[in-house]
Amino acid sequence: MSTIENLNMDRVQSDEIARIMMSIGRAARAATAELANASTQTKNHALKAMAGEIRTHKQDILAANQQDVKEAKQGNISSAFLDRLILTEDRVADMATSLEVIADLADPVGQVMAEWTRPNGLHISRVRVPLGVIGIIYESRPNVTADAGALCLKAGNAVILRSGSESFHSSQAIHTCLTAGLSKAGLPIAAIQLVPTTDRAAVGILLKDMVDYIDVIIPRGGKSLVERVQREARVPVLAHLEGLCHIYVDKAAQIEKAIAITLNAKMRRTGICGAAETLLIDRAVLDTHLKPIIGALVDAGCQVRGDGMARAIDDRIEPATEQDWTTEYLDAIISVKVVDDVDGAIEHIRHYGSHHTDSIITEDQHTADRFLKEVDSAIVMHNTSTQFADGGEFGMGAEIGISTSRLHSPGPVGAEQLTTFKYVVRGTGQTRP
Amino acid sequence: MSTIENLNMDRVQSDEIARIMMSIGRAARAATAELANASTQTKNHALKAMAGEIRTHKQDILAANQQDVKEAKQGNISSAFLDRLILTEDRVADMATSLEVIADLADPVGQVMAEWTRPNGLHISRVRVPLGVIGIIYESRPNVTADAGALCLKAGNAVILRSGSESFHSSQAIHTCLTAGLSKAGLPIAAIQLVPTTDRAAVGILLKDMVDYIDVIIPRGGKSLVERVQREARVPVLAHLEGLCHIYVDKAAQIEKAIAITLNAKMRRTGICGAAETLLIDRAVLDTHLKPIIGALVDAGCQVRGDGMARAIDDRIEPATEQDWTTEYLDAIISVKVVDDVDGAIEHIRHYGSHHTDSIITEDQHTADRFLKEVDSAIVMHNTSTQFADGGEFGMGAEIGISTSRLHSPGPVGAEQLTTFKYVVRGTGQTRP
Repeated sequence: MSTIENLNMDRVQSDEIARIMMSIGRAARAATAELANASTQTKNHALKAMAGEIRTHKQDILAANQQDVKEAKQGNISSAFLDRLILTEDRVADMATSLEVIADLADPVGQVMAEWTRPNGLHISRVRVPLGVIGIIYESRPNVTADAGALCLKAGNAVILRSGSESFHSSQAIHTCLTAGLSKAGLPIAAIQLVPTTDRAAVGILLKDMVDYIDVIIPRGGKSLVERVQREARVPVLAHLEGLCHIYVDKAAQIEKAIAITLNAKMRRTGICGAAETLLIDRAVLDTHLKPIIGALVDAGCQVRGDGMARAIDDRIEPATEQDWTTEYLDAIISVKVVDDVDGAIEHIRHYGSHHTDSIITEDQHTADRFLKEVDSAIVMHNTSTQFADGGEFGMGAEIGISTSRLHSPGPVGAEQLTTFKYVVRGTGQTRP
Repeated sequence: MSTIENLNMDRVQSDEIARIMMSIGRAARAATAELANASTQTKNHALKAMAGEIRTHKQDILAANQQDVKEAKQGNISSAFLDRLILTEDRVADMATSLEVIADLADPVGQVMAEWTRPNGLHISRVRVPLGVIGIIYESRPNVTADAGALCLKAGNAVILRSGSESFHSSQAIHTCLTAGLSKAGLPIAAIQLVPTTDRAAVGILLKDMVDYIDVIIPRGGKSLVERVQREARVPVLAHLEGLCHIYVDKAAQIEKAIAITLNAKMRRTGICGAAETLLIDRAVLDTHLKPIIGALVDAGCQVRGDGMARAIDDRIEPATEQDWTTEYLDAIISVKVVDDVDGAIEHIRHYGSHHTDSIITEDQHTADRFLKEVDSAIVMHNTSTQFADGGEFGMGAEIGISTSRLHSPGPVGAEQLTTFKYVVRGTGQTRP
């Protein structure tokens, strides 16, 4: 391993990548015992020291980011992508603040979730413990390096970060600050490791070959990552996949709420996973409710695509194809479909949804309850905007994202959701009859 | 599919097996909505009707079991295996009673786990919902067919059962009673399906190809199943794997407790996953504590294998090899290793344990707390027997088994652990600033 520094990591041979990855895995696993036993004070000391390092090395981070931006601009990238990639002095300052916010959160490790005493006197408690080693594969948003690293540490985990290639230099500069913070607190620097190559072979190794070293992989990304994970993963996965969020305007919807919520759900920020992508509207209020909603969206600069019935009401609607119902636009585009009643809405979401976040607009409590019960998503909402699908908005502090996995912890994933638990049984000599 | 009944399922071609499995998967998925919305009353009606069917068809079940036993005896099977396979009138009666016990458990579906109101007035609750479709792969214990089918139904799930081949006829006869019970309650019979072939190709399809139809696979079995699952699984797994449980006798152990607990943990029932397989003993009490413990074990008919230091104390101990530290005997055999203090015990368990259940015997509270904190198993115990690792003993009612997975729900898995949750957000028109 002594010659690694001399290699161009992007061209290193795949057996060398496998060796590097296994070495990272072993170091992460070796760090888990110390991390699980680290005090809240020590972890928070590290988090605050990381914030200080980021402030001190702001210029280094910005310079690394400029290199990323320069290289990215040579490729075929969207303005939304560029916006997510670019760091400014303010964004770096926010990153440091975010680390301090995570330091101030309650430490989930050691929390007693439940406890009871059995008739035979055995005292049983269910206690939160770290998950162990977490692998995070994310796309090119540099702040994820700091947020994800910090949240994993807060929950007592070791983390292996695999940054998107376009933000690789930024991630490296940020990662340097994180490890400096770990050192200052006396924690093992293997607590937060960054995969030192952008070669996609490293992702395959993370997904397939590191069963002994990784307890869970969290992929944060779009369709191509989803497909790769589903095809290759042998390690348990907590998926943070696309948000194909729906707003359903029921026949008992109040029109002002329907307009305001749809506009907010689609247009407040179009690039987040909680942004609405499809508007479902009850055929019974097509004539009264659709036109004003479309008007508000179009006025805000949104392109609208719809089925034949919707287009017959409003000629600003362009034709939608089957593909529109399964597309996470992450852009100022919305698809509109006319459905028969709440049953039609539930059926559409069951068929096309991504189990992320869906909202019904109605004044009819019975209809709302049916939607909330029968729509099978991590987050179901009544009379509010899907853009509230966010750990901060839920009061959970910082988050890694919204899990769309059914196992473990659907919905916002913060420090608490990055833990698991064990049962502690205290006896006085009991044997089982 | 109309010719299936006419085929010898064991010899059916693998593409036909794939077709059958996909058809089972589609039917299970299609049943989930109705099951998730089924009332507690309807599910309990089905469970009680199943119990009645099992009592009515007791002779059919026993006849099917006799066929299994006859075929099994032609192979090379152990007496412990045969004991798990054989059904008696009493065991069939217990199976029916167990279904009624499950009917009487609280329904986890719809339970509000937590709720809170945000400053903006949004009311958020975390509500238990079914996992969806569960696949269970189990070895030849016929009662699992009834228990697992019933627990999955109680939690509102559809289940695909893959019985061990040696208990296949018994499982079919029991499964017939379960579907009759579903029918009587008006629930879809696809709620509990039994894979109609013992061909091992079906297991591969369950693990690899049914990502769209199965939400989680629960494998219950020994090492060969473990290895296959780790190699092949693409579907999320909640593993119920081997229990390599340890008893650690610390220098501050009270000798009577150490004897009674070790004897109970090893010998009460040797064939269950919570049975102790390795005794770790603190070098400081080797001279005083080991001999009486070994004496009690040997008197009870246990074979003892140990390291050199243990053998120097007691010549009834046979030599242990490296393999003994990783062997789940499930038999009247125990391995003994001398360790340095609680640190040596923690280190040994970290290296050789299976994250199932481990217990420390000591009167030193500080040492106990270190063991309970640092041993990274689903269940950690102080001054009591590992044989208490059981959902019933925890007060959770019936269980499928003890999960050794870190994600979702380590430890005993009952009806509650077969659920997940969703967030229900109720607003009055809030939009996100």
